[in-house]
Amino acid sequence: MTGTGFTADRLLLFGATGDLSQRMLLPSLCALHADELIDPDLKIIGTARSDMSDHEFRNFAREALEKYLPAERRGGLAGFLNRLSYQQLDATQLAGYDELAKKVGEPKQGLAIFLSTAPSLFEPTIKGLQHAGLDGAHVRMCLEKPLGTDLGSSCEINDAVSAAFPEDRIFRIDHYLGKETVQNLLALRFANIMFEPIWNAAHIDHVQITVAETVGLEGRVAFYDDAGALRDMVQNHMLQLLALVAMEPPGSFDATAVRDEKVKVLRALRQVATGETVTGQYRAGAIGGKAVPGYDEELGKASDTETFVAIKVHVDNWRWKGVPFYLRTGKRLPQRVTEIVVQFRFVPHSIFAGKGATMQPNRLVIGIQPEENITLSLMSKVPGLDREGIRLRQVPLDISMPDAFVGQHRRIAYERLLLDLIEGDQTLFVRRDEVEAQWRWIDVIRAGWRAEGLAPKPYTAGSWGPSAAIALAERDGVSWHE
Amino acid sequence: MTGTGFTADRLLLFGATGDLSQRMLLPSLCALHADELIDPDLKIIGTARSDMSDHEFRNFAREALEKYLPAERRGGLAGFLNRLSYQQLDATQLAGYDELAKKVGEPKQGLAIFLSTAPSLFEPTIKGLQHAGLDGAHVRMCLEKPLGTDLGSSCEINDAVSAAFPEDRIFRIDHYLGKETVQNLLALRFANIMFEPIWNAAHIDHVQITVAETVGLEGRVAFYDDAGALRDMVQNHMLQLLALVAMEPPGSFDATAVRDEKVKVLRALRQVATGETVTGQYRAGAIGGKAVPGYDEELGKASDTETFVAIKVHVDNWRWKGVPFYLRTGKRLPQRVTEIVVQFRFVPHSIFAGKGATMQPNRLVIGIQPEENITLSLMSKVPGLDREGIRLRQVPLDISMPDAFVGQHRRIAYERLLLDLIEGDQTLFVRRDEVEAQWRWIDVIRAGWRAEGLAPKPYTAGSWGPSAAIALAERDGVSWHE
Repeated sequence: MTGTGFTADRLLLFGATGDLSQRMLLPSLCALHADELIDPDLKIIGTARSDMSDHEFRNFAREALEKYLPAERRGGLAGFLNRLSYQQLDATQLAGYDELAKKVGEPKQGLAIFLSTAPSLFEPTIKGLQHAGLDGAHVRMCLEKPLGTDLGSSCEINDAVSAAFPEDRIFRIDHYLGKETVQNLLALRFANIMFEPIWNAAHIDHVQITVAETVGLEGRVAFYDDAGALRDMVQNHMLQLLALVAMEPPGSFDATAVRDEKVKVLRALRQVATGETVTGQYRAGAIGGKAVPGYDEELGKASDTETFVAIKVHVDNWRWKGVPFYLRTGKRLPQRVTEIVVQFRFVPHSIFAGKGATMQPNRLVIGIQPEENITLSLMSKVPGLDREGIRLRQVPLDISMPDAFVGQHRRIAYERLLLDLIEGDQTLFVRRDEVEAQWRWIDVIRAGWRAEGLAPKPYTAGSWGPSAAIALAERDGVSWHE
Repeated sequence: MTGTGFTADRLLLFGATGDLSQRMLLPSLCALHADELIDPDLKIIGTARSDMSDHEFRNFAREALEKYLPAERRGGLAGFLNRLSYQQLDATQLAGYDELAKKVGEPKQGLAIFLSTAPSLFEPTIKGLQHAGLDGAHVRMCLEKPLGTDLGSSCEINDAVSAAFPEDRIFRIDHYLGKETVQNLLALRFANIMFEPIWNAAHIDHVQITVAETVGLEGRVAFYDDAGALRDMVQNHMLQLLALVAMEPPGSFDATAVRDEKVKVLRALRQVATGETVTGQYRAGAIGGKAVPGYDEELGKASDTETFVAIKVHVDNWRWKGVPFYLRTGKRLPQRVTEIVVQFRFVPHSIFAGKGATMQPNRLVIGIQPEENITLSLMSKVPGLDREGIRLRQVPLDISMPDAFVGQHRRIAYERLLLDLIEGDQTLFVRRDEVEAQWRWIDVIRAGWRAEGLAPKPYTAGSWGPSAAIALAERDGVSWHE
């Protein structure tokens, strides 16, 4: 535990009627309530532009929960809804914040604020909170992405927030850090003596990080077309995953030590040459046998926004010298999958001869979506008399072992993060210096694209992106893991 | 493949009516026949002191097979029995060998001889074979233990055999080397990049090798009381297992390279002080709820032969500096088990706090008897919200994965070794320099016992040996794996 040591007994949700609130935040809070993991005294106040009574908001929440939370996790639903109240607010008008503060009331211990609104509202919201006194030492501020569109705009937001809240009360969410297997990656690396001695350039050939979506634009038209895959996925989630894979062992599993190590990795990222990136934009195709339109058709106009990006990344430090990290993410890919593949090197010399002795190098696959699992692949001898030399076979070992942990339901990543916010543990939240190191690196890539007038290559919806992305890895003798 | 390059088409079994022949050799050969793994032309000639016709020997073999080989492995039994013939022989009389040679006939390619007789018959047998011309360049000699009772007597036997056969046609059996998981240990070490970097004193805390039997004297009264546990089990099987665990990577998986590395380990064994050994002899007790008599009662007299021995061994080289290898073997122990435990060290520093973060160090367990399996134990995160710090749990990964290799029946270790003998591959046989290094080390221990007049400590049948054996390990903070 780090950060200021209080447990919030008021949670104020900005954007309470929004998509994230319906799909993730309200379901997560309800599930935590059902498991009696949040204090009975915790009150949840929603706010948004819509005019709604408490009663209407509770009905709104009930509908969201029935839609997005499995029935077996909705235990004590009535009790949960009783925690909820609502205050209409025009976030750009100072006046409304006094009413909001009245609704929030006087917390016994502290207030946690979750800001899930358009970034353009961040500054006026902060001002309003300050105006209404909702910025004291008993208040934590949690920010949901996007935190800017480049280093400059990110700094503006962070400056605005830090004018009211010190860093140790600012909680920047990257919900990938709330995923079970992402945390298990750290357990694996640092609770076993086996991995650290081989977790380096001498034993790891390369790392792949894939975030593949099958969906297209969906409802996020304006935002996505401004952002693109690089800023939507790579800047935050994928660089955070990379940092967790690549970081040195922290001195302890606390916010300062872990984030100190992550930011060192982010600062060690080598500037990427344009030739080591591939961008794409999907055209009409088919996903799962169903025809889908192209990006421009969905958008209703031509666009040079990338819906796919692949990048070959280097971490310039002793541990990772010469080890490429291949990142790729895109929409309308054949399969929804988020995973990290740590590909070890071949053994330096094979002592076994014969055609049955073909070795696959060891591999660790950390599955994050849709399944959370961790698989270590080893070579083992096939039982037999080996008349033509020893026969080897790859054996995939399931480390996360869902069987071993029966009775544990899979939680939403936000459950963990909301609880950490309420209780004040910043370990799984992103620090300002990390965000800025991420943007600094991303901005160079984008500047390179602009300078060379790079346009995304078309790819058929349902394919794994432009063929240049395959070539990016194959050129090094590496195949993307599929 | 090494050794002289012919496939034997005659197999001559000395001791053909003995226990080993009935339980292991004939069943192994029949199973190989059923799987069509031996040449249709291979003839098997049994010889022993008993007077038997070919027909009687075939009936004898049939009875042994029906008793010791599962029905599903007896395919083509009649065809197998047709390979068999028999010649009565008094091995001490030169005269009989001419008859024997006539019975063997003229092999097309070569002859393999398997000597499973009392060691006192080795010398006269070799002389007889030489006399009858059964010692040419087309003949291989396979020796079953015991090969002597100390370095001197072992050298005598080896000298006698080497007077007739060069080392590359002498096959010394240690049937533990025919075990599937023993060979898989080598596959694991040398077909994966993961193990070699941690296979050393920096990452391994200690190694345990246990060969526990539940049986008592059985029929081997005279032999066993002369030998004792040290010479019956440690000198051969356990030191071979130790050598396979501890050896450097050989340049290739062939007889010379593998045995060169094993013998280096055997020569690097530190002389053991008497205080680092514990000997015991069982007293009446109970095994599996059934009362059993003491050793002296079974033997019918008092004896100072050890039926249990535990030894703390050091390998004096760079890799194993400071890593104890604890060996123990005994009769009338609670459980029949042969296994190797490679216990890794604790992580140097735990970054995780809280009562759920207790770590067990990684462990590799190679099960050889009664089950053949290999288990790697890792720590993994327990799914959950970690309100009191991360929760860790030991996850046992089954590497040998019988599931992954269904349809493969478990073979008798002798199947592999007999086939290697017939085909001439010495890799899994013990070379003379190994045997002698083993005896040299064993003799020093026995000399120490004699010098200090050490008598075995009594232990109750059904216990894990004298409490001093527990203390031997616990003194170092190590518990025997049970």
